[in-house]
Amino acid sequence: MRPVAIIGAGKTPFGAFPDQDIRSLSLTACRDAMADAGVTPAEIEAFYLGNFAGPAFAGQNHLAPYIAAASGLEGVPATRFEAACASSGSAFFHAYSAVAAGLYDIVLVAGVEVMTAQPTAKVTEILAGAGDLNGEVRAGATFPALFAMIARRHMHQYGTTREHLSQVAVKNHAHGFLNPGAHLRKRITLEQAVNGRPVSEPLNLFDCSLVSDGAAAVVIAPLERAREFSAQPVKVRGIAQTSDRVALDEKADITTFPAVVSAGKKALAMAGVTAEDIRVAELHDCFTIAEIVALEDLGFCPKGQGGPFSATGATSLGGAIPVNTSGGLKSKGHPVGATGVAQLCELTAQLRGQCGERQVPNVQLALAQNLGGSGATCVVTILEAA
Amino acid sequence: MRPVAIIGAGKTPFGAFPDQDIRSLSLTACRDAMADAGVTPAEIEAFYLGNFAGPAFAGQNHLAPYIAAASGLEGVPATRFEAACASSGSAFFHAYSAVAAGLYDIVLVAGVEVMTAQPTAKVTEILAGAGDLNGEVRAGATFPALFAMIARRHMHQYGTTREHLSQVAVKNHAHGFLNPGAHLRKRITLEQAVNGRPVSEPLNLFDCSLVSDGAAAVVIAPLERAREFSAQPVKVRGIAQTSDRVALDEKADITTFPAVVSAGKKALAMAGVTAEDIRVAELHDCFTIAEIVALEDLGFCPKGQGGPFSATGATSLGGAIPVNTSGGLKSKGHPVGATGVAQLCELTAQLRGQCGERQVPNVQLALAQNLGGSGATCVVTILEAA
Repeated sequence: MRPVAIIGAGKTPFGAFPDQDIRSLSLTACRDAMADAGVTPAEIEAFYLGNFAGPAFAGQNHLAPYIAAASGLEGVPATRFEAACASSGSAFFHAYSAVAAGLYDIVLVAGVEVMTAQPTAKVTEILAGAGDLNGEVRAGATFPALFAMIARRHMHQYGTTREHLSQVAVKNHAHGFLNPGAHLRKRITLEQAVNGRPVSEPLNLFDCSLVSDGAAAVVIAPLERAREFSAQPVKVRGIAQTSDRVALDEKADITTFPAVVSAGKKALAMAGVTAEDIRVAELHDCFTIAEIVALEDLGFCPKGQGGPFSATGATSLGGAIPVNTSGGLKSKGHPVGATGVAQLCELTAQLRGQCGERQVPNVQLALAQNLGGSGATCVVTILEAA
Repeated sequence: MRPVAIIGAGKTPFGAFPDQDIRSLSLTACRDAMADAGVTPAEIEAFYLGNFAGPAFAGQNHLAPYIAAASGLEGVPATRFEAACASSGSAFFHAYSAVAAGLYDIVLVAGVEVMTAQPTAKVTEILAGAGDLNGEVRAGATFPALFAMIARRHMHQYGTTREHLSQVAVKNHAHGFLNPGAHLRKRITLEQAVNGRPVSEPLNLFDCSLVSDGAAAVVIAPLERAREFSAQPVKVRGIAQTSDRVALDEKADITTFPAVVSAGKKALAMAGVTAEDIRVAELHDCFTIAEIVALEDLGFCPKGQGGPFSATGATSLGGAIPVNTSGGLKSKGHPVGATGVAQLCELTAQLRGQCGERQVPNVQLALAQNLGGSGATCVVTILEAA
C-alpha cells in the first residue's frame, strides 16, 4: 500500500438552493476540486460518489455516471456509494483504498445531497430509511427520537446535563459564524440553546443538525505524485471504515458506538498516533449528543466526560482540540451525502492554513469522523500536512 | 495485482415472494454462499452489497450493515453499491479489485432486490429513476420506451425484424424452463412471442424482462488460497467497469453502447482472450433488443447481425455460444440489484458442471455482461475454471 494524498478540494456553500439541482451542485464541487488540483477531467481515472437518498429526495438514481458524464469524465468506472450519513466518507474510503493499492493514480471523490425541496415530514421519513424498518422505525422512531434516547441514557448514566448539550450547539454556531460557506451563520446564546423549541425530549431545535443542500469533492493521488499537482498536498495518514447493527435496540449500550471506537482505533493505529496528537477534528454532530459521544468514543476524553470536557472550552477555537471549526453539521449544515467529503474539505483547508478567522494555528494532524445512522457505519480519516 | 477466485456461490430462487423481505432473501443467499465456500461469518473481512432501490421498493436504506450484521458479520466494512441494474456487478468489480490488490483475503459480495410488493406503475416509476430525470424521464420515457426506441432504430438501421426479437425470448424461456430457480418456467412459441400484448412498440410483453424478488451472493478469495475452501474454485480472468452518459438522447448512436464495447474490450484484453474463446455467456437481456445489441457490442457477431445470429440458433443450448442458460432476465427473472451477482452464480455453476439439463459441455471460459440503465454503466466479467 502506497501513501495517498488529497491534491484538490472543492465545495459548494451549504444552504437551501431552490434554483440548483443535484447535478448542478455536484458539478460546481467537482469542477472546483479539479481546478484546485490542476487536473483535467480527462486525467480522472475513476469517480466515487457518496449519496444517501438522491432517488427519494430528487427522483434521480444511477447518479454516479450521471454526474461523471456531466463533469466531463469519459467512460471511467463511476460508482455511487450509500452508507446513510457516512455515504461520502465511505466513497472516500474505497477511493483511498484503490489508489493506495495502485489501481488508479488520479481519482475524483464527491458527495452530494439536495434535501430542502421536500417538506420536513418527508425529509424525516426519508432519513428514517437509515434505521431498521422492521423494528425501531415501524415502532415510530425517527432519528431525533433515537438520538434523544441516547441523550437521555447518557444523562442517566454519566450525569450529562441539558447545558452540556447546549454548549455544543453554542460552540458550533460560533464556529460556523466564521465560515462563509455555512448554512446557518448565526451565533446563539446558551439561554437560547437551552430553551429551543422541543423536538424530541431532551433534544430541542438547537440540538439538531440542519436540512441542507450541498456538494463537496476532493481529488486524490499517490503521495509521490502529489506535488505535480498541488503545492500543499494533504496526506491520508490513517483511515478505517467499520460497521455495526443498524437498530439501536440491538446494541448492548446505546451511549457508545462500537463502530466509532473500532474505526478510531484502527485509523489511529494506522497513523501511528494517539488522539492527543490530533490538533483539529470534524466530528459527526448530527445531534449535539453525537458530538459528545464521539469525543468519548475516539478517546479525546474519558467515557462519560464528553459533556464536562466540552464545557471547559477544550473543543472551541483556542481550546486544546477545536472540534467542528466549519460549524459542523449543526451550523455549516448537513446535506447527508456530502457531509463526509465536506469534513475532509474543511480539514484540508485547516492543514493548508486557509481558514481565515477560524484557522487553528500549527495544525499538523487532523481527524474526521463520519457516522451513518445511529452508528451502523463509521469512517474515521486522519489527515496530515504533507 | 494477484489472481482472485470465486470460492462459493449462493442464490435464492427468483420469483414473487410475499412472505420474504429484503433481509431474509439476502440472508439466504449469503448463508448459502458462505456454506458453499466453507467459511464462517467471522472469516469475512468485508461486505459488498449491490442494491438499486431498496429504499423505494422496501423503505429500507443503509442496507449493507443491515444485512451484514444479520448475516453474522461483525464490524467489517459493509458498503452498498448502486449502479442501476449493474449494482451488484459493480459491487463485485470493487470487491474483486480490493482482493486483487491485497486489501482483504475473504470477501462476501451480494446483490438483492424486492420488487413485486409494489404495483406495476410504481415499479416503472422507480426504475425510471435510472434514466435522466431532467430529460428523457420528464418527457415521459420509461425504460420499455427507451429500449423500444433502440429496437426501432436497430430495425431501421440493420433490418432487424420482429421475429429476431422474439427468437431471443423463445430461446431464453426454453433455457429458463430447465432452471429450477427461474421465475417464469414456461416455454413459449415464436407465434406467442410475436403476438404478445403490446408494451411499447415494437416491444411486447415477451420482449420485457420480469419484475422479481431475489438475492444472490458469492465469496471471493485470492486464487492462491482458493483450494483451502473449494474443490472447484472459479478464477476471475478479466473484469472491467465503465460508464457513459445516462440520457439516451445524449448518445451518438443508440444501437450501440460504448460502455459495453469498452468494458468488453478491457475485460477480454485483461483475460488475454477473444470473444471466440468464450463458451457460455450471461448477457443483460433486460429487453430482447438488449441481448441482440450486447452480442454485437461484445464481438460475438458483427455489428447489426445480432438478430440473424440469434436466429441461427448459435446462442441456444447446443449452439456455438449459448447465451443466458439461466433463462436470463427474461425467464430467470430480474430482481435488479441481484442480477449482476446472479449471472456470476450461473456461470460458476456452468464452470463447475453443476447445471444439469442446461449444462454446456466442456466450459473453460465464461462471460457475464451486466448493464445499468440504457448503457450508462457496464460491468463485464470473464470467469475461468481454475
